[in-house]
Amino acid sequence: MNEVSAAHPRGVFAAAVTPLTSNLEPDSSAFVAHCRWLLEQGCDGVVPIGTTGEGNSLSVGQRLEIIEAATRSGIAMSRFIFGTGSCALADAVALTREAVAANSAGVLVLPPFYYKEPSEEGLARFYSELIDRVGDDRLRVYLYHFPRLSTVPITPALVKRLRTAYPGIIAGLKDSSGDWSFSAGLLKQFPGFGVFSGSEGFLLANLRAGGTGCISANVNVTAALAHRVYAAWREDRADRLQQELDQVRAVLDRYPLPAAIKHVMRVITGNAAWQYLLPPNQPLSEEEGRALMAGLAALPQMKPILART
Amino acid sequence: MNEVSAAHPRGVFAAAVTPLTSNLEPDSSAFVAHCRWLLEQGCDGVVPIGTTGEGNSLSVGQRLEIIEAATRSGIAMSRFIFGTGSCALADAVALTREAVAANSAGVLVLPPFYYKEPSEEGLARFYSELIDRVGDDRLRVYLYHFPRLSTVPITPALVKRLRTAYPGIIAGLKDSSGDWSFSAGLLKQFPGFGVFSGSEGFLLANLRAGGTGCISANVNVTAALAHRVYAAWREDRADRLQQELDQVRAVLDRYPLPAAIKHVMRVITGNAAWQYLLPPNQPLSEEEGRALMAGLAALPQMKPILART
Repeated sequence: MNEVSAAHPRGVFAAAVTPLTSNLEPDSSAFVAHCRWLLEQGCDGVVPIGTTGEGNSLSVGQRLEIIEAATRSGIAMSRFIFGTGSCALADAVALTREAVAANSAGVLVLPPFYYKEPSEEGLARFYSELIDRVGDDRLRVYLYHFPRLSTVPITPALVKRLRTAYPGIIAGLKDSSGDWSFSAGLLKQFPGFGVFSGSEGFLLANLRAGGTGCISANVNVTAALAHRVYAAWREDRADRLQQELDQVRAVLDRYPLPAAIKHVMRVITGNAAWQYLLPPNQPLSEEEGRALMAGLAALPQMKPILART
Repeated sequence: MNEVSAAHPRGVFAAAVTPLTSNLEPDSSAFVAHCRWLLEQGCDGVVPIGTTGEGNSLSVGQRLEIIEAATRSGIAMSRFIFGTGSCALADAVALTREAVAANSAGVLVLPPFYYKEPSEEGLARFYSELIDRVGDDRLRVYLYHFPRLSTVPITPALVKRLRTAYPGIIAGLKDSSGDWSFSAGLLKQFPGFGVFSGSEGFLLANLRAGGTGCISANVNVTAALAHRVYAAWREDRADRLQQELDQVRAVLDRYPLPAAIKHVMRVITGNAAWQYLLPPNQPLSEEEGRALMAGLAALPQMKPILART
């Protein structure tokens, strides 16, 4: 990545799964190895400790360990956007400060998600307090719109309000609504806003509409295929490449996340650190695991990826 | 409280609001003063850092400060049940360990609430890991059923499974569903189970059905009235006393929690520590505050309570 792309992250970002020890602590060395592999496969960047990374199931201390492991890895920090949201303002501040101090490309911040139907004023106050307390011009905030899990949508009115208050700092949004019209509406209302699709299924559509790329769970597995879409997105063949990506997505999406991704990583790498999930998430059953791998193996575009096994 | 009631908490428990400094840190001395006042008013116990106490909006460190402030207060620790739930297992363990080390009467534990529709197996694993990691026979867990906010119900099947696995430790449940039939069903299925109603509106019904009492936000304000219901629950006059309690509840329930409770506490005590809420919760508007206080002042049973102003 050159300096410009470092300042404005673009392309294919994996919402990285978090390998764990048998005692359910983060496995830092397996995590760094996974980040390296994702970048080798063609990811433009990695987003640890978000939804797929079981960020909310990890303590603040454990999440800080992941940020520190990334910092010590030697990987350019411009490749990382860290999930730093929390229901607790003080925790979001601590995580975001660490991510900024590490010179990461940005932070992905869920709204506080325990209290239901918070006011726009209350949400704006959460993000304002966070930004003011971090107090660092290097901060780049990606708002995290995932209403099915957070139950708290990021409305266009909130985006407008925060962009006006913090024009350089509110850098973009990850749209995990599954509703393409939400991204399309934002890109129309706020040209140049850094909209990442939460699904690689919208990667091409998002790029064509002026969006920035995707931050996706499935690209833990399909980084190489998503990279081909991104590399060719201005060309006619991009549609066919997107279809190849979608075929894999259709298989992965039959199984719960992050269990499905961890199962594939375990098979590909043989590393036991992929078999553990923090409760309440559970690993796939043996039968699910077999069916998933058979489904993937039936797709020719998965051959080079599965060849690592 | 004698040793028996300390071992099996019963009666009227306030889900205590958390006073904050202007910098949004817990105000320990105002917190302890509030606990003392609640007990003087007739509360049998206090439940800090739950939903009303903005527990999920506080960092683990801030929640530990509250537990420590209670420990140093000189109040008998058998009067406290602490909210120690978290989406992160390691955080729930750290908080629960501290609450047990402090000899509290128990802990009130939300299920992990970020991931939606977790399996019963996954929830059982969360509570099992928590109990096993704390590893202390003194632990008494109250499951926290608040599906509107947590989105994750505690099903009777889960209660059965956990009671079977940890018969002495799974002590009861706080039912904040607002659906009386849920409590009634549990008491029928599990006689002697420590069911607290999450609303003082069900206090009398719950006691008559074999339940343990209530853990309620409104009793921050109406402890004296709820105490009268509890003291008289076997007598005919209990219905009239419950009605007097319900009249106040009807006024308080028009306004958002915990803002309404904090507003009343600010008026009653004159302490500025009650004016701050952690985002996304917001204080009442001036108009709401005036209407709330007028509504309360119109009720004769509120006179002795408001006389503190």
